[in-house]
Amino acid sequence: MSHAADPSHPRYASLLKRAMLEDAAAKGMLAASALIAHGRGEAFDYLLGEMTTATALEATTEAAARLSAGGRVVISINGNVAALAADDLIRCSALLDCPLEINIFYRTPERMSALLEHMSERQAVVAETPPPHGWRDDDEQTWAETVRGVRILGAEPDASIPGLEGPRAKCHREGILDSDVILVPLEDGDRCEALVAMGKDVLVVDLNPLSRSAKMGNVTIVDELTRFCANLLATLITGAPAVNREWDNLANLQSSLDEICRNISRADSSPES
Amino acid sequence: MSHAADPSHPRYASLLKRAMLEDAAAKGMLAASALIAHGRGEAFDYLLGEMTTATALEATTEAAARLSAGGRVVISINGNVAALAADDLIRCSALLDCPLEINIFYRTPERMSALLEHMSERQAVVAETPPPHGWRDDDEQTWAETVRGVRILGAEPDASIPGLEGPRAKCHREGILDSDVILVPLEDGDRCEALVAMGKDVLVVDLNPLSRSAKMGNVTIVDELTRFCANLLATLITGAPAVNREWDNLANLQSSLDEICRNISRADSSPES
Repeated sequence: MSHAADPSHPRYASLLKRAMLEDAAAKGMLAASALIAHGRGEAFDYLLGEMTTATALEATTEAAARLSAGGRVVISINGNVAALAADDLIRCSALLDCPLEINIFYRTPERMSALLEHMSERQAVVAETPPPHGWRDDDEQTWAETVRGVRILGAEPDASIPGLEGPRAKCHREGILDSDVILVPLEDGDRCEALVAMGKDVLVVDLNPLSRSAKMGNVTIVDELTRFCANLLATLITGAPAVNREWDNLANLQSSLDEICRNISRADSSPES
Repeated sequence: MSHAADPSHPRYASLLKRAMLEDAAAKGMLAASALIAHGRGEAFDYLLGEMTTATALEATTEAAARLSAGGRVVISINGNVAALAADDLIRCSALLDCPLEINIFYRTPERMSALLEHMSERQAVVAETPPPHGWRDDDEQTWAETVRGVRILGAEPDASIPGLEGPRAKCHREGILDSDVILVPLEDGDRCEALVAMGKDVLVVDLNPLSRSAKMGNVTIVDELTRFCANLLATLITGAPAVNREWDNLANLQSSLDEICRNISRADSSPES
């Protein structure tokens, strides 16, 4: 924990994320498997060089294009996402005028309360910080109002995702159910599959290019969540390009796999990393 | 957790290990980073096909050879190792007539107490279970006495590992300090380096073939801990071969890296894993 306070530490970014997850765990926001899932992501990020690849940036740009194309958009948030990327995803929702929906796999009233409270706190904080650089005329008053207008759903689900059973199927009609485009960072494979089966345009963020979610998604961003969110925000502000109707997601995934193999080969040539 | 009770579940082994770690966390045996570290291991195991490779089995055989060669041996145990592999490592210590030393990176009196209590409990359980198949004449009485004779060190360290600072340097003279051969599963890179600098024969178990520990070790077993322990136990019972003085650890690591690349290529050819 003490390491995380020192930005010059070579593992500062990594330690900071761990500290954020430990805080979230203490608040009751996370399922027991959340830290293990984060560790799996760390390993894949390590193999990707702990940086955003050109491949990931292409996928991020395509995701920004689809989020900006005029359909009904929703951003789905689970425990790890809320812990690591609440602020930037609230900013993205403000820019896209779309709701955030807290939607967790292991749904309990306690976790939902902790997550709703956390998101509400972060919304208040983000409203009081300056708008992202480049946003319209940098009008702080308008920015604050826009951020406060972001709807955070999840408290009173009134619909179900077809093909899923139990609490994990619950969702909001005005959020996930009626959306055309859904951004689901760090999503479970079953739920990702169910969303694709509903005909939605599913944008996945997953560091494992071989995961079921990665393969099921329509656009899969193989990147660390906080780097992805920063890049998405920047792209939304500068303006996303038109949707690429020829987008080949499996080719993009293959490019990430190739990158991992190249990094393994390179890393091996030096005796110590 | 309920999944872990069903051995037919495709992820039974993985879920069982998670349940063991969650129990260990509840008992205060683990540092905050333990579950994240386990997740990193899961990712590498996934890339290795979640099975012991021929490469890993070669390294396991070489480790068994060095542990059996007549030097002073110690097995170093941290929180995750105690949670996942206490029983088999107690059995290995009984076969090798060597001490186990609890030696943790984030040393606190509370964690040490929890770990010592856990190991002591497991020692009593292992003493009362039948000896491993093939052990001498399967004499249960002798087995129980042999297991009860295993020394579990860590409570009162009386020496330090040169080159390390603070509580993480603490060790026992009759354990780590005076050992010739040390088995250190899931070890931190700094400590691994310090042990190698002491001139010890350092046997590492690490699923990441690129980690500092993996590269520093004299023999590195790139395998999941519980599979490694089962294989080590079996090799010690059937009898280890002579030490291979030509052992090329970096070549063995390279072989694991090649395996990962092959698996990535293979996995990619099927649209869903």
